[in-house]
Amino acid sequence: MLLVKVEGARTRQLWCDLLGELRPGLVARPFDAPDARPEEARYVLTWAPAPGWLAGLPNLRAIFSLGAGVDHITTDPTWPRHVPLVRMGGEEPGQRMGEYVAWACLTLLRHGRDFARAQAERRWEYKVGEDTARDLTVGIMGMGALGAAAAPMLRGLGYRVAGWSRTRKAVEGVESFAGAGELDAFLARADVLVCLLPATPETAGIVNRELLAKLRPGAGFVNAARGPHAVVPDLVAALDSGQLSGAVLDVFDPEPLPAESPLWSHPKVTVTPHVASVARRRERARYVAEAIAGFEAGGPLPNLYDPVRGY
Amino acid sequence: MLLVKVEGARTRQLWCDLLGELRPGLVARPFDAPDARPEEARYVLTWAPAPGWLAGLPNLRAIFSLGAGVDHITTDPTWPRHVPLVRMGGEEPGQRMGEYVAWACLTLLRHGRDFARAQAERRWEYKVGEDTARDLTVGIMGMGALGAAAAPMLRGLGYRVAGWSRTRKAVEGVESFAGAGELDAFLARADVLVCLLPATPETAGIVNRELLAKLRPGAGFVNAARGPHAVVPDLVAALDSGQLSGAVLDVFDPEPLPAESPLWSHPKVTVTPHVASVARRRERARYVAEAIAGFEAGGPLPNLYDPVRGY
Repeated sequence: MLLVKVEGARTRQLWCDLLGELRPGLVARPFDAPDARPEEARYVLTWAPAPGWLAGLPNLRAIFSLGAGVDHITTDPTWPRHVPLVRMGGEEPGQRMGEYVAWACLTLLRHGRDFARAQAERRWEYKVGEDTARDLTVGIMGMGALGAAAAPMLRGLGYRVAGWSRTRKAVEGVESFAGAGELDAFLARADVLVCLLPATPETAGIVNRELLAKLRPGAGFVNAARGPHAVVPDLVAALDSGQLSGAVLDVFDPEPLPAESPLWSHPKVTVTPHVASVARRRERARYVAEAIAGFEAGGPLPNLYDPVRGY
Repeated sequence: MLLVKVEGARTRQLWCDLLGELRPGLVARPFDAPDARPEEARYVLTWAPAPGWLAGLPNLRAIFSLGAGVDHITTDPTWPRHVPLVRMGGEEPGQRMGEYVAWACLTLLRHGRDFARAQAERRWEYKVGEDTARDLTVGIMGMGALGAAAAPMLRGLGYRVAGWSRTRKAVEGVESFAGAGELDAFLARADVLVCLLPATPETAGIVNRELLAKLRPGAGFVNAARGPHAVVPDLVAALDSGQLSGAVLDVFDPEPLPAESPLWSHPKVTVTPHVASVARRRERARYVAEAIAGFEAGGPLPNLYDPVRGY
């Protein structure tokens, strides 16, 4: 039995229907269904379970996260660490993230925020910058599956791409920087900094005053990872001083972004409501169904959380 | 001598300085300089000269347009038709147009207008569509140099691309439709229609109710060509009925778009102030200087206006 613990009774049933259709042998139930007995749960599909809930399932073989991030699960202090934790994968999250990052970089390059503000005021304000994408380097912090999917899309638009990650990555056409020792060189290279890092204690607050000061003056910033990566007062100060020319932010801490946040009205900030990389339910259900099929046939689970890396 | 007739005394001098620097033998003068004698003018660089002005230059060898379009010149009834008319070329206009078209298509796909409106009202409104770029075909009307530059950028984002033009074009990865006889089949294929047509009497008003009805319901529309291509009341009706899901418009008739236009506040329309494809002055000056150098060495002028095509 697989238990689905996500928000919304109707959404839970949709997941169960899809999983049952894609893997007929699998009994998928909403976590609150009458016949959903904790001791029978072998698998769980969840995003942000209430702390303690997972610990009450004694016979779990694997936990599946609805998204590429697992921070909403691993921050539960009673989370059963002996159970394999699978991050969402498949091609669609990368495609969606690539589209979002491309849109965000082009929005910064082609003055999307200025034009949106001018349109709201029925103002014709001509603005064309000196640079084309061919003159700029996008620096992606976090070159996992999503960064690797975004890189060729950016290259197709003309951007140069540099990547920074814990370990060196070989992605075609991407200049790879690795580890703390190469962070400064990476930052000096980036005209647009894109944060796609996993949320771990090490990466919380990484985009702060000190880091932003290492970018070239007038750089752009995109956060499509997690809100806590960026220190908002430092971000606003860098935008106001001109150290940053603009930011496109999809993630916040907390979410939804409170109405009183200064980010909503900042003339250099574009806000989107955490939409960068969400795959269709069917594609994600297929990923889970195929992972379980492989696992039950004796194969390994894909895309496992690594306690040493923290993601 | 080359006369520069563009708006702004400072701008005219900048053009003259650049042209003189890039081709030291060339005497470039603002059209209103004391030593700018009409009978000495061999070349003109202009965008929208006052009607009759070109006819007063008896010894012209070539006219250079500041942009890819020449409609602001050919609509002068006294325009000297025997003088070769050169449309702006080079790589940068295509790069810029490709960036704009990619941004516009992603803005439609990823709800950029909805999010801009929500941001203005400090509203967190989650919205993720069913389709990714891989599920959609962008149909480009007008597969000249700009369309050919945009196509691979769109393909890199995952879109399929179809092109429609007067004559069949071979662009890698682009399904080519040609002539009036294949227009309906092209329109039926397009999930997003992008207008990059030249402005001619034949193309004025081409994007009207009849054409829009041939798109699949919920298609998107991008106009980065000329305002008169689109019939605005028909466009608004298609948006209001849902036949179009959204539009990104860079060009209008007249420009600037008047403050009372319904387009500014339409919830499905993104307005930008004619910025899609403007190359840097230096790149354009280089193009003109090189064209003159080749011409004076006995070679042909590039990118000539064709009176039969009308562009």
